[in-house]
Amino acid sequence: MQRRDFIKKVGAASVALGTGLAMTNVQARADFKWKMVTTWPKNFPGLGTAANNLARLIGEMSGGRMQVKVYGAKELVPAFGVFDAVSRGTAEMGHGSAYYWKGKMEVGQFFSTVPFGLTAQEMNAWMYHGGGLQLWTELYDNFGLIPAPAGNTGVQMGGWFNKEINSVADLEGLKMRIPGLGGEVLKRAGGTPVNLPGGELFTSLKSGAIDATEWVGPYNDLAFGLYRAAKYYYYPGFHEPGTILEAMINKEAFNALPKDLQSIVMNACKVVNQDLLAEYTARNPAALHELLTKHKVQLRAYPDDVLKKLRKISNEVVAELADKDDFSRKVYQSYKQFYDNALLWSDISERAYLDARARV
Amino acid sequence: MQRRDFIKKVGAASVALGTGLAMTNVQARADFKWKMVTTWPKNFPGLGTAANNLARLIGEMSGGRMQVKVYGAKELVPAFGVFDAVSRGTAEMGHGSAYYWKGKMEVGQFFSTVPFGLTAQEMNAWMYHGGGLQLWTELYDNFGLIPAPAGNTGVQMGGWFNKEINSVADLEGLKMRIPGLGGEVLKRAGGTPVNLPGGELFTSLKSGAIDATEWVGPYNDLAFGLYRAAKYYYYPGFHEPGTILEAMINKEAFNALPKDLQSIVMNACKVVNQDLLAEYTARNPAALHELLTKHKVQLRAYPDDVLKKLRKISNEVVAELADKDDFSRKVYQSYKQFYDNALLWSDISERAYLDARARV
Repeated sequence: MQRRDFIKKVGAASVALGTGLAMTNVQARADFKWKMVTTWPKNFPGLGTAANNLARLIGEMSGGRMQVKVYGAKELVPAFGVFDAVSRGTAEMGHGSAYYWKGKMEVGQFFSTVPFGLTAQEMNAWMYHGGGLQLWTELYDNFGLIPAPAGNTGVQMGGWFNKEINSVADLEGLKMRIPGLGGEVLKRAGGTPVNLPGGELFTSLKSGAIDATEWVGPYNDLAFGLYRAAKYYYYPGFHEPGTILEAMINKEAFNALPKDLQSIVMNACKVVNQDLLAEYTARNPAALHELLTKHKVQLRAYPDDVLKKLRKISNEVVAELADKDDFSRKVYQSYKQFYDNALLWSDISERAYLDARARV
Repeated sequence: MQRRDFIKKVGAASVALGTGLAMTNVQARADFKWKMVTTWPKNFPGLGTAANNLARLIGEMSGGRMQVKVYGAKELVPAFGVFDAVSRGTAEMGHGSAYYWKGKMEVGQFFSTVPFGLTAQEMNAWMYHGGGLQLWTELYDNFGLIPAPAGNTGVQMGGWFNKEINSVADLEGLKMRIPGLGGEVLKRAGGTPVNLPGGELFTSLKSGAIDATEWVGPYNDLAFGLYRAAKYYYYPGFHEPGTILEAMINKEAFNALPKDLQSIVMNACKVVNQDLLAEYTARNPAALHELLTKHKVQLRAYPDDVLKKLRKISNEVVAELADKDDFSRKVYQSYKQFYDNALLWSDISERAYLDARARV
């Protein structure tokens, strides 16, 4: 018998039993109605639809006992107001990425992405089987929040420029939208990083308020029409090799859920974490093809000496961040140890295979 | 209030109501008790524990309304009897990999792995957003089964040999355990492929019944002690670049579940699919280190001219398989189109990034 039928029958029975059981019944039939605020435009392909999927899965797996309503950026709170809103309990859930909150806690950037750092597959390994998620949970606990990976972009593109980047000197004076540690790297290379929500990128680039921007990859960059504001499209996205999108959950709201719904919420995040990466991997190729052929975008690889310089700066930036306080040191040590091992393994597995596949 | 408390209270109330509600209560408290048969030794690290996790997640998310009991190979049916057992309904679920059933349907091998084919991340993309899972579902429907990706090994190792492989001639006469399309490739290169369940590998290799074997990667190969039976450890695993472990579900049993439990079962498979890949990615490095330092295993890369020859054979094998019948052609076309696009994207994303990370 379906649970719904059971509830219906018990509901009918409870009428005969009087108010005591009737109250019990109401509480059981209903319902946890949650709000999820997001840093993305409502229904934005990939990022916004992943938040929608997360809500849908929770509804489906709970048989409707739990409903999550998704709000796009600015609908309930501004894009960069998401963290505070969930921390305060204005909404029970949020969807964003940890580097958006670096003003509150710089160390949180390790839980989004690190320049020249771990790929999506490696980030998941660090998160779920390398202690990463435990550290992240410890950090967000200070804000009454529970974090969960809930989406990954994979290796991003380097970004959109209106001039070619032939040397590090070409980055000097460049005002570029680039969040997180990548932004700090650009700053030390002579540029001016800006942190803007996705919804403001096209207008800012078109109007000249910024000179360059990165966003995600072909599928998302095409959706924002960035090719109409810049013509050079650089790769690889050294600054975001596998960015985690996060779900954050108000801890008090979470603790009020029965155990099965708690499990459903956390596992729905895991499902979406995998699904969004799969979606990007499936949809980026066709979008890239459209950008290159229909929109005549110029694809460019960062020159090696630019990458070398940026990597040197990245190492400095990460080392300094790691030295801020005890907790940052702890996170860095965990990340660094995992990273060193992951590289050894990648060199004879993923990288060795991809190179062989392209070569022979 | 937690669901369990609700049930308890309703349970107490139902005593007063008599048998009608009492029966309702019993049915609701219970229960779907399923059996899951597997091709792995019970509790085998990674593969066996993934099956355990799948069962645990279904139990947790359903609040105990559904219980799945896991059986190791030979406990209920032999490793290679899993498919038939679930198809017949002897068990409601199974955990294995589609290439084990190539005797029944060669085309099923596309849903495990293809030599020089898609990586784990790309397989997930084809499965969930490229039409792969729909085709697989169509195929298994003929056997009364529903398939789901439920684990991925990532890029495997090439295998264990007691002699060096310096040319294709070194593969001649080699009796090697290697399942799926990789086995057919070895055969055409002059070797003799054998399909054995994991639990029989060590003894077969040690006794000389086989000359060489591949299994999964450092974490799993260490667990079976394969280093005690062979000393050369080859990479990359061109034959299994991202093998999907499958859950198969008896369709009739699945259709008898209420919608919320159906969703829980399918999403639990997705969670495990991601989690096992993360586990391998996290645990392979330390296992590799132990193999190389403590057990003095000799790590070797396949020479390029060997890989070139094997790739040429692989292309022939896959093209022939694709030409067997209409359905095989349909699967091949879907896979091939996805593959060609995935390579273009990988070359400027995953591969470009991994190479830059190693180079600069």
